[in-house]
Amino acid sequence: MKNLLLSSILCLLTFVCITVTAQNADSIAIKRIFSDALTDSSSYHNLRNLTGHYGGRLAGSAQSLNAVKWAEQVLKNMGLDTVFLQECNVRHWERGVQETGKVLSAKAGNHELRICSLGGSVPTAVNGLTAKVVEVRDYDELKKLGKEKVSGKIVFINHPADPSLYNTFAAYGGAAGYRVRGAVQAAYYGAVAMIDRSATPSHDDFPHTGIQHYADTVNKIPALSVSTNEADNLSRWLKADPDLDVFLKTSCNELPETTSWNVIGEIRGTEHPEEIIAFGGHLDCWDICQGAHDDGAGVAQTIDILRLYRSLDLKPRHTIRVIVYMDEEMEQRGAKAYAGAAKGRKHIAAIEADRGGFTPWGFSIDATDEQVKKVQSWKNLLLPYGLFYFEKGGSGVDIRDLKSQGVPLFGLVPDSQRYFDYHHSVNDSFDKINIRELQLGTASMAALVFLIDEYGL
Amino acid sequence: MKNLLLSSILCLLTFVCITVTAQNADSIAIKRIFSDALTDSSSYHNLRNLTGHYGGRLAGSAQSLNAVKWAEQVLKNMGLDTVFLQECNVRHWERGVQETGKVLSAKAGNHELRICSLGGSVPTAVNGLTAKVVEVRDYDELKKLGKEKVSGKIVFINHPADPSLYNTFAAYGGAAGYRVRGAVQAAYYGAVAMIDRSATPSHDDFPHTGIQHYADTVNKIPALSVSTNEADNLSRWLKADPDLDVFLKTSCNELPETTSWNVIGEIRGTEHPEEIIAFGGHLDCWDICQGAHDDGAGVAQTIDILRLYRSLDLKPRHTIRVIVYMDEEMEQRGAKAYAGAAKGRKHIAAIEADRGGFTPWGFSIDATDEQVKKVQSWKNLLLPYGLFYFEKGGSGVDIRDLKSQGVPLFGLVPDSQRYFDYHHSVNDSFDKINIRELQLGTASMAALVFLIDEYGL
Repeated sequence: MKNLLLSSILCLLTFVCITVTAQNADSIAIKRIFSDALTDSSSYHNLRNLTGHYGGRLAGSAQSLNAVKWAEQVLKNMGLDTVFLQECNVRHWERGVQETGKVLSAKAGNHELRICSLGGSVPTAVNGLTAKVVEVRDYDELKKLGKEKVSGKIVFINHPADPSLYNTFAAYGGAAGYRVRGAVQAAYYGAVAMIDRSATPSHDDFPHTGIQHYADTVNKIPALSVSTNEADNLSRWLKADPDLDVFLKTSCNELPETTSWNVIGEIRGTEHPEEIIAFGGHLDCWDICQGAHDDGAGVAQTIDILRLYRSLDLKPRHTIRVIVYMDEEMEQRGAKAYAGAAKGRKHIAAIEADRGGFTPWGFSIDATDEQVKKVQSWKNLLLPYGLFYFEKGGSGVDIRDLKSQGVPLFGLVPDSQRYFDYHHSVNDSFDKINIRELQLGTASMAALVFLIDEYGL
Repeated sequence: MKNLLLSSILCLLTFVCITVTAQNADSIAIKRIFSDALTDSSSYHNLRNLTGHYGGRLAGSAQSLNAVKWAEQVLKNMGLDTVFLQECNVRHWERGVQETGKVLSAKAGNHELRICSLGGSVPTAVNGLTAKVVEVRDYDELKKLGKEKVSGKIVFINHPADPSLYNTFAAYGGAAGYRVRGAVQAAYYGAVAMIDRSATPSHDDFPHTGIQHYADTVNKIPALSVSTNEADNLSRWLKADPDLDVFLKTSCNELPETTSWNVIGEIRGTEHPEEIIAFGGHLDCWDICQGAHDDGAGVAQTIDILRLYRSLDLKPRHTIRVIVYMDEEMEQRGAKAYAGAAKGRKHIAAIEADRGGFTPWGFSIDATDEQVKKVQSWKNLLLPYGLFYFEKGGSGVDIRDLKSQGVPLFGLVPDSQRYFDYHHSVNDSFDKINIRELQLGTASMAALVFLIDEYGL
């Protein structure tokens, strides 16, 4: 008995020592990761180049194809083990040359109305359209007005993203549905166009664009957005003169589908090269902006994980791979191509960075309870770097198709307060990037990759 | 026995019910607090007025006295129970009319050297001074050079705030000592002036100022800073020509001490009006900037706690009081006056907001272990608002003198990544304020005040 007790104690002590030593080694490794990321400006310079040279890189555009070449060259210059392109077909929607909006009213005055077509919208007639406007706050109000009061008019959906919500993604989520489906609902009641209040809790002068979808059952009508300030203006003008006219002229255009590519680079694993830890962001962005936070930041950060591994001479046991996705904004064709090709290749984990280049908080985890618990057991290693959030939740639209293959999914969760000041608007430009916040995204994901590579899930 | 068991169970159930109901009521109250703060722009507008009209409000300056009047009027307009001024004597140091620096070198070229006197510095001679420069990284290097190599020269202390550290306050702390005491150390070895690399991990063109202190034992020599980029320039020029000359001309001036004031406002407690929960920020800021993050934000946020209490019709049991402190930057004379007057008035807690108007993380708590644990027991109520940090640590220099009176002290801890991009430089301007991040500071402190008022410490 005594011997058994003694050997049990010795076993326990050995276990504790090994655990403590491993924790200490991990802690040192993670400190190196953060130090390297915070003192290397590659991601910042890559993002400056991407946003400066290839702004407006919506899938299908010439800019997006040049951005693909740029990303491929950046990865090739890093001396990775593998760099390749992965083909996908994408839509090719263009905004056209000019977008004009005017408010015409003897009572409320004539005003420019600064509009912006939503992604995928049809244009107005060549000479534009002029119609009266009905303002609604939601679909219930629209329904109450009915066909009689809506038919032949422009429906103005003035539904604010609720600023009282702490989580700006929740505020966005409560408003973005009107952008996506507002034109369908308005067309059902006979509207000739739909104007949506931008889905942001901020008060600004930037119309925010974003995808909208038509239905086959109703007419396709022009779908546009106005800035939150302009929505307030329009609402005031309508109060002063409910019979005012609005003139709209847009020339957007849906061209034939075209070929584009995901860009993929990897460092081969030393022990399990056939098993992949994947991470990525999306290269495409809306045509009206530089796409600095959405999602140039995610691209620059996930590429930078590979640079960091090289810089620290870390040899991953499993293959680590960056995927620079094409076409997140319209149809996620790159994501679908990747998920299709991934079948049969074991992915240990996939991480997506697509919530802006702000101070990271942690990860939203779409995985089993056991896997979430395993990640939470690493919390003490990551808390010194402000990473406190490791909760079950959604990951990101570019990796979610891997879920059916049983891949544990992670979405990088940064501070969300400023994201929708920029999102899908001309305000999403490189000057809004803070270098340290950007670098910390690289470090946070690299630390997670390191721990997954070391301990699995 | 059965009856005892039954009544015990009933007691327990009642206790659990009361606890759950109280938690639920608290959770609702805190949600109201955050919703109100996130939808009211008073703090933002107050800060715009303060920074726009009363920039450069260093203690003793005309701007600071006008800012005192402004703060008093803002509080009076809020219909508080009490508003009063609290007198203190302050230093009156002025930068003077012009600061000129030049690098003069046949080999390295002639260059403007963009300098900035440190707070409290003596001026150069009226016609300036010209001297050769020795660059050191720290006091060890200075000591090694010794009097022989330093005497008659300008000492350039090029010690970077370490960007590899996650916590920017730690990076700042490792460099700011050279600003505070560099001139004393340099003078000890016979230097004629001291130029310090700005204490920020960022690379920018803004010289950052800040207090520096002389010693009676050595000559008072001009103490200046250069931006981090300019420090890199000067270092390069010195490598190209170690014998280059630097010309410096400054005209700062220490005037006689003058009278200034803290500004105090309060809402009287309904049950314990004699017991105070205090919170505040400092009104003064460096003369070269608007002082938006340091510390206009703290002033606007802590004033806004009282507005929020009024707006939500919350009746605090204890008196809640904002203190708008004077002279944090130079000598903390306002803090000393307040602590002196506070003796005999029971303060249940004091909170300071002086780390910038960024997304709040929680509080650094200078209190007993039991008090810290009590605050940590509220964590689940606050975590939904991103408040995860409730750790023992320092509070703030304006409230620390209350410690000897046994007051539990709290420092609001926001995200620190951007603070030193702005701190003590012309870059600390109103346009660097994000309205939601600012509002969340109000809400976080108001929630803490609410819980302390409800449950004590």
